[in-house]
Amino acid sequence: MPDGYAFLKGHGTENDFVLLPDHDGSVHGDLAVARVRALCDRRAGLGADGVLRVIRTNVIDPPLAAAAEWFMDYRNADGGLSEMCGNGIRLFALHLAQEGLVDPSAPVPIATRDGTKTVTLDGDAITVDLGHPRDLGQTTVGVDVRSWSARHVDMGNPHAVAFVDDLADAGRLLDVPAFDAAVYPHGVNVEFVVRRGPGHVAMRVHERGVGETRSCGTGAGAVLVATALADGRDPAHDGAGDAAYVVDVPGGRLGLTWTADDRVLLTGPAVVVARGTTSL
Amino acid sequence: MPDGYAFLKGHGTENDFVLLPDHDGSVHGDLAVARVRALCDRRAGLGADGVLRVIRTNVIDPPLAAAAEWFMDYRNADGGLSEMCGNGIRLFALHLAQEGLVDPSAPVPIATRDGTKTVTLDGDAITVDLGHPRDLGQTTVGVDVRSWSARHVDMGNPHAVAFVDDLADAGRLLDVPAFDAAVYPHGVNVEFVVRRGPGHVAMRVHERGVGETRSCGTGAGAVLVATALADGRDPAHDGAGDAAYVVDVPGGRLGLTWTADDRVLLTGPAVVVARGTTSL
Repeated sequence: MPDGYAFLKGHGTENDFVLLPDHDGSVHGDLAVARVRALCDRRAGLGADGVLRVIRTNVIDPPLAAAAEWFMDYRNADGGLSEMCGNGIRLFALHLAQEGLVDPSAPVPIATRDGTKTVTLDGDAITVDLGHPRDLGQTTVGVDVRSWSARHVDMGNPHAVAFVDDLADAGRLLDVPAFDAAVYPHGVNVEFVVRRGPGHVAMRVHERGVGETRSCGTGAGAVLVATALADGRDPAHDGAGDAAYVVDVPGGRLGLTWTADDRVLLTGPAVVVARGTTSL
Repeated sequence: MPDGYAFLKGHGTENDFVLLPDHDGSVHGDLAVARVRALCDRRAGLGADGVLRVIRTNVIDPPLAAAAEWFMDYRNADGGLSEMCGNGIRLFALHLAQEGLVDPSAPVPIATRDGTKTVTLDGDAITVDLGHPRDLGQTTVGVDVRSWSARHVDMGNPHAVAFVDDLADAGRLLDVPAFDAAVYPHGVNVEFVVRRGPGHVAMRVHERGVGETRSCGTGAGAVLVATALADGRDPAHDGAGDAAYVVDVPGGRLGLTWTADDRVLLTGPAVVVARGTTSL
């Protein structure tokens, strides 16, 4: 193998990422789309849902450094820029802590294209504040000949959450589910949900531009909101305190909390499984 | 990340593998099924079609050392032992050469569970001798409501090669194609083939126990045999010399030769794309 550059591989509930340490921006420059695609290729590359470049804010935009030392330069597997990723930022924070680049005993601010987020680390429970959700009412989604009523929840990105009798009802999810293009002109992430017990649901998700995935942090947040509303909760107004749910995804288990100050907190594990160098 | 053990990742025409250097057998012992599965998991692990442990023959079976210094301990992604892999052994030989463990200017003998194979390295053209093919006549395969006549070719493992009008005719290949269980009691690898020009075909393959893959070395060998026979060639008996074909697979291009001494040679590129340590 020719000489290469450093990488790490890890995941949060099987939403997986290649981490690229590039603290001063000298390794990857603009980080070419072709390199991101090559890294994420699951046969010819390392394979991942996306790339998380680890770079200091003062390299990207010096004023940002007042809010956060580190910038999460997140790219989708197709090479495109992306604002935020709830599972990715949890892995990103774990990596910073493991490398001694931040103090894990305090909340870790991380700059993203969707603003500065805060991550707290407590062993396997790594929590990111996903911000304010927006409930936008009812819509409809479909798979093949079936259709379901769904809740339109905006988590910074658009979601449609449908309660189903059985997660298998959504079939193989090989195609984009049917949705109302007037409601979602730029597409939508579709979640299918079943009840598992009090405060406990399980979901599958079809991610816009990706397909079915093993986990989706903002999708779990949308499921939290739709479930809490279906349970008659409205934490920001009902005076009954936080609403906390366990959300099982195909890749593991997440904890979701809708706080009384109207924020969504996503908690779950993350793990770095490998590190090395690559010539991709 | 906890301390780990060494790995490399690479592929041959996008048939991808994790290489585990374990020269004296002290790193992995019996190499647990669970570890192989964890390494090959495409979300939680490194992701691969299989694992190639690099171990000296004198550790495995001292008498083997007379024929080959190195043993390719090949495991499928499901953790099971497997005899041979045409693309895997080409990557294995490249790795040995890159690490200075063999002399790449001479044919490299490599012990496998299917006997000792010989690999020659010539830049991007890495060739393995797959041995004698066996033509076992006609059979039938099907996908959904369609069916095709197919050639039964044994390459050490069983194949059914069907010529189709268009590679898309096989559909998404999500399910095992229909086949004659009396002919193939242990299942079959099914190849779908179209002509691209004189001496040039393209194929898709559904691998037994795996699903559709980007490349299959023995499958390309079976396609070579079926195509040559369809072209009226029989190199071992017709006195017309070797029969050479280019076989395009979804993951790249392979060169296949049926020699006048009735052997199948598989030639193609291989590449190591990453190396490091993993805690999986």
